Amino acid sequence: MANFKRGKQSFSLPEGITITAWASVAGKREIEGPLGHCFDIKCRDTYFGQKTWEQAENQMQKLALRKLTEKAGIALQDIGLVYSGDLLNQCMGSSFSLRGAGIPHLGLYGACSTMAESLLLASMTVGGGFQDRVAAMTSSHFAASERQYRFPLGYGGQRTPTSQWTVTGSGAVLVERQGKGPKVTSCTIGTVTDLGVKDSNNMGAAMVPAAYATIRAHFEDLHVGPEDFDRIITGDLGQLGKELLLELARKDGVSLGGKLEDCGTVVFDNTKQDVHAGGSGCGCSAIALCGYYLDQLNRGKLKKILFCGTGAMLSPTSTQQGMPIPGVCHAICITGGK
Amino acid sequence: MANFKRGKQSFSLPEGITITAWASVAGKREIEGPLGHCFDIKCRDTYFGQKTWEQAENQMQKLALRKLTEKAGIALQDIGLVYSGDLLNQCMGSSFSLRGAGIPHLGLYGACSTMAESLLLASMTVGGGFQDRVAAMTSSHFAASERQYRFPLGYGGQRTPTSQWTVTGSGAVLVERQGKGPKVTSCTIGTVTDLGVKDSNNMGAAMVPAAYATIRAHFEDLHVGPEDFDRIITGDLGQLGKELLLELARKDGVSLGGKLEDCGTVVFDNTKQDVHAGGSGCGCSAIALCGYYLDQLNRGKLKKILFCGTGAMLSPTSTQQGMPIPGVCHAICITGGK
Repeated sequence: MANFKRGKQSFSLPEGITITAWASVAGKREIEGPLGHCFDIKCRDTYFGQKTWEQAENQMQKLALRKLTEKAGIALQDIGLVYSGDLLNQCMGSSFSLRGAGIPHLGLYGACSTMAESLLLASMTVGGGFQDRVAAMTSSHFAASERQYRFPLGYGGQRTPTSQWTVTGSGAVLVERQGKGPKVTSCTIGTVTDLGVKDSNNMGAAMVPAAYATIRAHFEDLHVGPEDFDRIITGDLGQLGKELLLELARKDGVSLGGKLEDCGTVVFDNTKQDVHAGGSGCGCSAIALCGYYLDQLNRGKLKKILFCGTGAMLSPTSTQQGMPIPGVCHAICITGGK
Repeated sequence: MANFKRGKQSFSLPEGITITAWASVAGKREIEGPLGHCFDIKCRDTYFGQKTWEQAENQMQKLALRKLTEKAGIALQDIGLVYSGDLLNQCMGSSFSLRGAGIPHLGLYGACSTMAESLLLASMTVGGGFQDRVAAMTSSHFAASERQYRFPLGYGGQRTPTSQWTVTGSGAVLVERQGKGPKVTSCTIGTVTDLGVKDSNNMGAAMVPAAYATIRAHFEDLHVGPEDFDRIITGDLGQLGKELLLELARKDGVSLGGKLEDCGTVVFDNTKQDVHAGGSGCGCSAIALCGYYLDQLNRGKLKKILFCGTGAMLSPTSTQQGMPIPGVCHAICITGGK
C-alpha cells in the first residue's frame, strides 16, 4: 500500500496532482481592486440576478463551476466529486448550488480556509486513486456575511480599524491525476489553535498563531524553508495579521520577509478602497488563487508557492458566549505548470 | 498508482480499513431509550457540566474523543487527524472541542450525514496512505438545535407529528490500516438531491430521495443488492421517512423490507418517548453506530451492514426564503470483525 505521509501533519505527492483548470467569479468591489482584470466572471450586480444575497452566493458557485467545466472542456457530469463549503449557516451557499447537479458532494466547514481545505482533500482523493476528476470550490458574499455575522447593512454600523471586508466572490479548481497545469506536491493539515484572542473584529490576529503553526509544521515535516518558495501566501490575515505573522516568525528565528503575501492585502487596494485591514471570507483566498496565483504559476512567473488557507472558527454564538476565536490553517505546496 | 474507484460514485477498499475503536456519549433521553445500556458515557445533566448547551456539545465531543483513545489504548497525540462536524452554526461544536488539542483537523458540514461523511473520509485517508490513524467524530444537542433551528425551548412551541427529536449525543471512531475490528470495505458518495419538499418539520421525507439515490448507486457501482447485507441502516429518516423509503424502493422494483433499519427509529422508543417521528441530528446515527451497530459487528451478530448517513442541507435562512430542502446521503459498507 502507498504511503504518502510525511512527518506528523503532512503528506507528499511526489509525482504531483495536476490542477487542470480554475475559474473565478468576482463582485463589484473586487473588480475595482488591483486584481480586477484577472477574474473570469465579473458581475456588478450584488444579487447576481437572484432575489437574495444567499441565493446570489449559490449563483456565484454555480457560475464558477460552469466556467470551470467550460475552461476544462468537459461536461458538468464529468466531475466525479465536488468538495465545497462556505461561511453561511449550514453552508447553504454550497449545498444549494449543487442541487440536482447529479455530482457527488462532500461538504466542508473550514471558514476562510475552505479553498485550501477543499483543494487539499481533492488532491488526496485523486492522489489516492479514489476519483479521477475532483473539483474544489468555495465562496463568500459581503452582504450575506455582514447580516449573518455582524449587523444588517441597513443599520449602517461602524467598522473598527482592524475589521476586514468579506470578499464577494467564488473560486473553483479542477484536480486530475494527469494533464497540464500547476501541480500540488505536498500538503500540511493544521491544528485548531488559539491564543485567547476574543475580538471578532480582529480575526486576522486570531488566525496568526494557527498560520504560523502550520507553516512551521510544513517546513519541519517536508524539510523545507522560506528559501524554497517564491511566495508564501496566507489567506486571509489582512494587513495587521500579516505584520503579526512576520513578527511571530521573526521571534522564532524564521524570516518570512519578502516571501509573505496575504490574499487579504492583494485583492483590495487598502489605501483606496476603504476596506480597513483588508479582505477576508472564503472567497478572498479563492479568487486570489483562482484568479491570479494559478495563472502566475501556469505562466512560469512563479515556480513554487505555499498556499496557506487560514480560517477563524468562531460563530456569532461563540462570540456572544465570550469564547476566544480558534484558528486553523492548511498549507498546500503548488509548483508551476512549466 | 492505486485505483480504488468503482463505478461513478463509489470506491472499494478490498483489504478493508479497520475501525479499531469506537466510543459513544449520550444524554438523558437517549439513556432512557432502547439502546440506553449500550453507550460508553451516560450523562443526565443536559449541560454536561458546562455553562451553555453549545459548550455542552463541545464537551460531549471531548468526552467521546477521550473515551476513544482510552478504549484504543493510545494517547490523544497519537491521533494523526480528526474529521468532524456538527449542526451548530459554523460547526462550533467541533472546532471548539479540538482547541489546543494539537491534532490536525479537517472540518465537515454534512448535517445529519456527518458520521458517515467523516468515516468515509477517514477510510479514504488511511486507505490512500495519507495518515496512519484517523478519527471521525460528530455530535448534536437537542436544546442547542432547538433554539438554533426552531424556537427557544422556553417558548414551549408545539411540534408537528412529522417532526423528529434531535439526539443529544456524540460518537467517535478510530480508523487504522491494521488491527482488530469491523472493516470499511467500500463507500459511495452521494449527490445533493431534492424533490421540492419544503416542510422543515418533515425532514425525513425530504431526505428520502437522497437516501434511495445513494443506496441504488451503491448497488450499481459495487454490483451488490439488499441480499448482500444483514442490515441497511439509514440515519435518520425517522418513522415516516423509513416508510417512504421502503415505498420508493418498492416502486423501483427493489425490496428493502426486512433489511432496512433507521437510526431515528432505534435510538428512541417512539411509542413511549414522545419523540414524534423519531430521532434525528448528527448524534443520532453517531450513537447508533458507535454505541450499538459496531459492537454487533464486532461480536459477529451482524456480518455486513450498509450504513447510510442522511443529511438535510437546509438552514433556517433557506427555509425563511421558501427554498426546498436538499438532502444528501453517503453509504459505507462495514463488515464484521470476526
